[in-house]
Amino acid sequence: MLLGVTMGDAAGVGPEILLRAYANGEITSDIVAFGDLAILEHAAGLLGLRVALQSVQDPRQRRAGVLNVCDLGLLASDGLTVGEINRETGRAAREYVVAATQGALAGTVDAVVTLPMNKEATRLSDPGFPGHTELIAGLCGASDVVMMLASESLTVSHVSTHLPMEEAVRRVTRSRVRRVIELTDEALKRFTERPRIGVAGLNPHAGEAGLFGRQELEEIAPAVRDAREEGIDADGPFPPDTIFYMAVRKKRFDAVVCMYHDQGHVPVKLLDFEGAVNVTLGLPIVRTSVDHGTAFDIAYKGVASTQSFVNAVALAARLVEA
Amino acid sequence: MLLGVTMGDAAGVGPEILLRAYANGEITSDIVAFGDLAILEHAAGLLGLRVALQSVQDPRQRRAGVLNVCDLGLLASDGLTVGEINRETGRAAREYVVAATQGALAGTVDAVVTLPMNKEATRLSDPGFPGHTELIAGLCGASDVVMMLASESLTVSHVSTHLPMEEAVRRVTRSRVRRVIELTDEALKRFTERPRIGVAGLNPHAGEAGLFGRQELEEIAPAVRDAREEGIDADGPFPPDTIFYMAVRKKRFDAVVCMYHDQGHVPVKLLDFEGAVNVTLGLPIVRTSVDHGTAFDIAYKGVASTQSFVNAVALAARLVEA
Repeated sequence: MLLGVTMGDAAGVGPEILLRAYANGEITSDIVAFGDLAILEHAAGLLGLRVALQSVQDPRQRRAGVLNVCDLGLLASDGLTVGEINRETGRAAREYVVAATQGALAGTVDAVVTLPMNKEATRLSDPGFPGHTELIAGLCGASDVVMMLASESLTVSHVSTHLPMEEAVRRVTRSRVRRVIELTDEALKRFTERPRIGVAGLNPHAGEAGLFGRQELEEIAPAVRDAREEGIDADGPFPPDTIFYMAVRKKRFDAVVCMYHDQGHVPVKLLDFEGAVNVTLGLPIVRTSVDHGTAFDIAYKGVASTQSFVNAVALAARLVEA
Repeated sequence: MLLGVTMGDAAGVGPEILLRAYANGEITSDIVAFGDLAILEHAAGLLGLRVALQSVQDPRQRRAGVLNVCDLGLLASDGLTVGEINRETGRAAREYVVAATQGALAGTVDAVVTLPMNKEATRLSDPGFPGHTELIAGLCGASDVVMMLASESLTVSHVSTHLPMEEAVRRVTRSRVRRVIELTDEALKRFTERPRIGVAGLNPHAGEAGLFGRQELEEIAPAVRDAREEGIDADGPFPPDTIFYMAVRKKRFDAVVCMYHDQGHVPVKLLDFEGAVNVTLGLPIVRTSVDHGTAFDIAYKGVASTQSFVNAVALAARLVEA
């Protein structure tokens, strides 16, 4: 098994997280990096890390005992703008993702693990760039993806992610909620025979029988019924301020389906700020990602946590093996 | 100091929580209950609790060593419909709140601590009943109240509470956010000289500079500036999935101002499901409340947690003393 890791925006924390996790022995799967060898060599020098780097044309040519790099040769170290939004690093970060995803689709790597891009930087060369996950979904021809966020004590999946709240409310439809339940169930079945899925309401108290909001009655409850008719062990909708207690303290659910980004992100990040891993469901390939951004303010200082990346690699390996 | 405690809907967990907390010696302040003596005697008998109950006409006539009850004489025990929505228990619960609030306004009690009502039950006799807190606000002539939720590790206050999410989004205005910051600051100043107040965004990533939502730029950030110009130590808006980590793990804030009900309730209830206390800010009286409902399914079984009530009494006493 070989996992393709994208280096992320060279101006951010991606390169150093990759190098530090590798140098610390935190990576226990075979990986090949998609990025710029010149940047990784430069970063290793700056941070005083002794990492043997090896350029490979094709991931299958990898050597043991070194960090193999599919070198795209897009950036030089002398113009590197650490901690800044830059057209060239933004453009390069996009290319690493394209190369790794194509590798996964072609079967030269078994999964893609991504380090952070910067949306603003990438938009300087690609104004229509919709986002990291959307780019991968587009390359895969997948139109209906779901962001799952996995941590040790809580796993959530989201009906929508990066939308204004007023738009997120409109995305809570029976068909989308049902699809998110189905993809969540499918993902968990790799590890659990019959996953127990809790479904959150959208409104306070899950609408209190329609007193404040009708999405629970008209969209979410029917979606849960649909899923149950398919044989999925889904239950809900439950009040949002109760369902995480049920999942985390009472161990009632293996995952919680959340109606918008922060409904799931607030509890997961509170419980495990640094270790949560992002998994994209609904793709024909396995893709996990760190759940943090480029963190320009601390880039190349050697302080960024490697935890989310280490967990993202480990989860990708488990998903490939399952 | 004397705290007025309302018994709550007689069909729910209110009476037994009051009796069990009292009998267990968990109540360390002087209290007088507003309720029905017949129901409390009946509940004590059912649960096998030895509690000396004493009827008083006026809270000032209270005796030491007994549980004093301002007996409204509205309900008899033989018709009691435990665990059911009932017009008479709903109506009576409303009357206890009216009597206790009038007592606080008249100065015969120093604060009001409320046990749960059932909105549906009260609406059977008062169809326009807007809610527990709204009833108290109306009796006090207060139009601009805020729900604060206090727990050991996290205190939050809310721009709105029991509204559909689509309506909650529209309530995020500069003037309302500013008012919530001000009332939160005022409340915390009873205990802390210069409270540090974190303000959450509404949208994912706090809108990411307007990419998904503009309330942060147009409403919340200006409200934070307004508050700072008044000398309040407010900061934000921060991404909702980061601010609770900052408050709880990094101890950066004494309270977090939240843009809607579940933004604050999800983290508090995850951290302290049974102990959180509801405080109403913006009233001329001190009012705290349990943060749970009538829990009809477990009423009179002796299993309902007394923790939120015990904490609500203790916090009311601290607020009166401060």
